[in-house]
Amino acid sequence: MRNVPIRISADSETPLYLQLADALRRAIREGAYPGGEKLPSIRRIADEAGVNPATAVSAYRILEREGWVEARAGSGVYARSGMRGRTEHADHDYGDPGRRPALSDLASGKVLVPPGVLDMAAGAPSPALFPVSRFKELLDEVLDRDGGWAFGYQESAGWPPFREAVAEYMRDAHGIDCEAADIRIVSGAQQGIDLAAKALLGPRDSVATESPTYRGALSVFWSRGAETIPVPIEGDGPAIDAMERIVRERKPRLAYVIPRYQNPTTVCWTETKMRGLLEMAERGDFYVLEDDLLSDLSYGPRPAPSSLKAMDSGDRVIYVRGFSKVLMPGLRLGAVVIPKALRERFEAAKRATDISTDGLTQRALDLYLRRGLHRDQLERLGKHYARVYEAAVAAARKLEPLGVRFVPPGGGLHLWLELPAGVSGTELRTACLGRSVSIVPEAVYGTDSERPADAHVRVSFAALDAEETARGLALIGQALSDLGKKSGERPLL
Amino acid sequence: MRNVPIRISADSETPLYLQLADALRRAIREGAYPGGEKLPSIRRIADEAGVNPATAVSAYRILEREGWVEARAGSGVYARSGMRGRTEHADHDYGDPGRRPALSDLASGKVLVPPGVLDMAAGAPSPALFPVSRFKELLDEVLDRDGGWAFGYQESAGWPPFREAVAEYMRDAHGIDCEAADIRIVSGAQQGIDLAAKALLGPRDSVATESPTYRGALSVFWSRGAETIPVPIEGDGPAIDAMERIVRERKPRLAYVIPRYQNPTTVCWTETKMRGLLEMAERGDFYVLEDDLLSDLSYGPRPAPSSLKAMDSGDRVIYVRGFSKVLMPGLRLGAVVIPKALRERFEAAKRATDISTDGLTQRALDLYLRRGLHRDQLERLGKHYARVYEAAVAAARKLEPLGVRFVPPGGGLHLWLELPAGVSGTELRTACLGRSVSIVPEAVYGTDSERPADAHVRVSFAALDAEETARGLALIGQALSDLGKKSGERPLL
Repeated sequence: MRNVPIRISADSETPLYLQLADALRRAIREGAYPGGEKLPSIRRIADEAGVNPATAVSAYRILEREGWVEARAGSGVYARSGMRGRTEHADHDYGDPGRRPALSDLASGKVLVPPGVLDMAAGAPSPALFPVSRFKELLDEVLDRDGGWAFGYQESAGWPPFREAVAEYMRDAHGIDCEAADIRIVSGAQQGIDLAAKALLGPRDSVATESPTYRGALSVFWSRGAETIPVPIEGDGPAIDAMERIVRERKPRLAYVIPRYQNPTTVCWTETKMRGLLEMAERGDFYVLEDDLLSDLSYGPRPAPSSLKAMDSGDRVIYVRGFSKVLMPGLRLGAVVIPKALRERFEAAKRATDISTDGLTQRALDLYLRRGLHRDQLERLGKHYARVYEAAVAAARKLEPLGVRFVPPGGGLHLWLELPAGVSGTELRTACLGRSVSIVPEAVYGTDSERPADAHVRVSFAALDAEETARGLALIGQALSDLGKKSGERPLL
Repeated sequence: MRNVPIRISADSETPLYLQLADALRRAIREGAYPGGEKLPSIRRIADEAGVNPATAVSAYRILEREGWVEARAGSGVYARSGMRGRTEHADHDYGDPGRRPALSDLASGKVLVPPGVLDMAAGAPSPALFPVSRFKELLDEVLDRDGGWAFGYQESAGWPPFREAVAEYMRDAHGIDCEAADIRIVSGAQQGIDLAAKALLGPRDSVATESPTYRGALSVFWSRGAETIPVPIEGDGPAIDAMERIVRERKPRLAYVIPRYQNPTTVCWTETKMRGLLEMAERGDFYVLEDDLLSDLSYGPRPAPSSLKAMDSGDRVIYVRGFSKVLMPGLRLGAVVIPKALRERFEAAKRATDISTDGLTQRALDLYLRRGLHRDQLERLGKHYARVYEAAVAAARKLEPLGVRFVPPGGGLHLWLELPAGVSGTELRTACLGRSVSIVPEAVYGTDSERPADAHVRVSFAALDAEETARGLALIGQALSDLGKKSGERPLL
C-alpha cells in the first residue's frame, strides 16, 4: 500500500467525491497501485484528503463501477489488474472512461476500458469513423514528394500552401471573406484560444463569456490572470441586456463565444444577437473570439446559422476552428482567421508557445482539403450522425414524462437536458454511472461562482450508434427513476 | 504600390534597419508586393516607419542581398518574382533565408531561397540529414497496427508506452533517474519552456537566466509578466557570486539554464557550478529549468558533462529536451522530466494549452526509440558533425590574426566568436550578408538592457558540410577585413 498525495480543493466547483475519484484513478493509472494491490482504507483516505468517510465511499463506488477497483468483502478495496497506464479519454471537456471495443494490448497503443459503459460524455467521434486508410495514403504521398522538407522547421504562421487551402475552405464552406495572409495554423482549437489569450490578455483584463461554457477556455483566461464575466445564455443566444451592461461597466477586452451549437447548451444564436454583439464590440472596442467546432454537422431542415466572422465587417472577430475535432482529434490541427491588427501579436505568441505546428500533418491535411476529401468525410459523418441524432431526439422525448425538457438543436453532437426540479446534474451523473452510462453534469461548465447551476446534463451521441444512443437515453431515464424512488434518503451515499 | 503597415520599435534591441528589413520581407512573403511590383520609395518608407532615410536604404540593401528585391537604376526598388510565400527558416532563434538547394515548386512544399547564401545562422540540421524513409516505414507500421486509435484524443501527459520509452532513454543516455510517471510529452522544447512558465510563473515573479541566452525562452517569461534577471556567463558557467546575490536579493522563482553547449555561448558548466546552483535552489526554494538541446553531439576527447537533472537529488530540476532538434525539427516533439511536486500543475497547463501532443508522431517516435534507431541516427550525425566541427575550428583559427577569439566547445552545432574591439556583431552580420553568409549577432540574445552587448557572433555549422563551413568562415574573415578598411566612414550606410 502506497502513500499517494491527494489534493482536494473545497473551492472547486467539482464535488469533493468526484475530485477524490479523479485523484485515485490517476494514481492507479500511473502505476501507484498495481493490479491486486490493496488501496487505502476508507478512514485513511478520508483523513488524508480531509473529507468525511461518506465522500470516500462515494469515490470508491465510482471507481468500482468504472472497473478500476474491486471491493472484496471483509477485506478492502483492491486495484484491478491491467488498469495501469489505462487511458481516460479526454473529451475536450471531461474525462470518463468510455465505451470502446475491449482491446487488450496496451503496448500496441490500444486502450483498456471496462466493457459495457456507454460513453455519452465524449465530445468526439469514435476512432472507427476516422478516415485512416485515406489519410495514410496522403502521408505517404507527402513523404514521397517532400522528403525531409516535411520535417524541417515550419513557418510559425503555418505552411503557406495549406493556409491557402484553408482560406478557400473558409470562404466556400463558411462564407468567411479571407485569404491566406489572414489564416494562422494552430495545433488544435485549444491552442487557438490559448494564443488569442496570449496576444490580448494580461492580469486584470476582463473576458465576457456565455454561461455555461466550455471549461477549457475559462482555464486559459484564468491562467493569464484575466477575469471572466458570465453572460447568461438564453434559447437564442446570450442575454443582450446583461451583455450591454457588462460592456458598459466592465469594459471587457474580449468576448469568448460559441454561436453555433454552443457547448454545452447546443443553442444557436439568432442573426440579430450576432449583429448585436458585433456592434457592441465596435462601440466598446473589444475583440470577439468565436469558437466554431460543430457547425459542419447540421441535420435539420434549418441549416446552421452563418458564422459571426462571416458578418464581421469591422475585423473584430478572431475565428477559431479545430480541423481535427470532427476529423481526427489526435491530429491536433486547427486554423484561426485573425484580424489584421492582431497578425503580428498572434504570430509572436505562436512562436513563443511551440514555434510552429507539425509540418507533416499540415501537408497531409492540405491534400485532404484540396482534393475534396474533407467535404466527402463531412458528408459521410453528416449522414451517420443524422440517423443517430434522430434516435437521440426520439429517445429523449420519452424522458419528458419524467420531467425532462430539451430543445432539439438540429445539429452538433449533443443534447442538453433540463432535469426535473430537485434533481442535480451531478446526482444524475452518479446514478447514471451506476447504470453504466457516463454523461456530463452542468456543474462542470459553471462560470458563475455566485449562482452555481447544475439543473442540466449534456448527453453526447458522438461516440455511439443509433441503437446505443437510444439504449443510453433509456438508461438515463431509469437512473432518473432510481433517484425519484430514493428521494428522502440522501441519494447514493 | 500598396500601403503596408510597418511597425518599428525604438525600444527594441534589434537595430531599426533590421526591424524594417524584417517588416518588408514579411510583406513580400505574404504577397503584398507580387513579383515586378514597385516598393515604396526610400523617402516614403522612411516617413511611414518614422526612421531616417539612411535606415531605409540599409533595409533595402539587405533585402537586395537576400534576393527579395532588385534595384532598377533611376526607377526604384521592385519585388523579385517567385518570392511570395517564400519561407524564412526559423532557426529557433533568428530567421534568415538560408542556403538550400534552389527548388522551384512552392506548391510541393519546397522552399524558394536565393542560391549562394551560406546559412550559418541555422540552429538545426539540413533536411538532407533527416531519417525520412525509416520514419515513413514507422508511420506506416503504426497506422497498420493502431488504425484510428493513433488519431483519437491522447492523454495530456503523453502516450503511456512512449513515456516509458522516453524514461528508458533518459536513464540510459543521460543518467537521469526517472520512470514513465515523471515524463511529460510536449510539442517541442519551446512548449516545455512555455508550460513550465505557466505552471510556475505569474506577474512580478523573477527568473534568473544566463546572459546571453536563448531569446525564445525570455519571450515566454516576459509573456507571463515575469521579470528576467541576467547572470553573466563565464567560460565555465554562470558567475556564481552574481547568482548568489540575485538569489539572496531577488528571490527568483525559477532559474533558466542551458548547462551543456549553452546557446549561444557554447559554454559547458563545470560540475562544481552545477552543484552550486542545485544547492542554491534548495536553499532559496526555487526551481531550475534545464534546457538540454545539443548534449547528444560531442566530438572532443572530453565528453559532455553530466546533466543537472542527473545530479538533482532534491527534485528541483525541470528537464526539457526537444527530441526533434537534432532529429527532425518539424516534428514538434519533446519530453520533460518533471519534479513530482509539479506533475499536476504541469499537466493542467498542457491541457489548457493544446490538450495533448499529436498521437501519431508519439507512436512513431516510440518505435524509433525502442528499436535503437535514435541511437543509430545520433551516431551518424555525430560522425558527420565531427568532421564539420574540425573544419570549423581550423577555419576559425585562421581568423585569430584578425583579432577574433574563441574557445572550441567540443560539441554542439555552433562556434561563438569574440570580435576585435570596435566591431559589433550587428555590423559584422550586415557585412557578412554582403558576402552572402548569414550569422547571428550577440545583440539578438541580449538579456541585459542596461549593458547591451554585441561583441560576439554565433556561427553555426548545423546546415553545412565541412567544405562550406570552411568557406563560410573565410568569407566572415573577408567581411571583417571589409569593415576594417571602411573604419572611419560609417560602415555600410
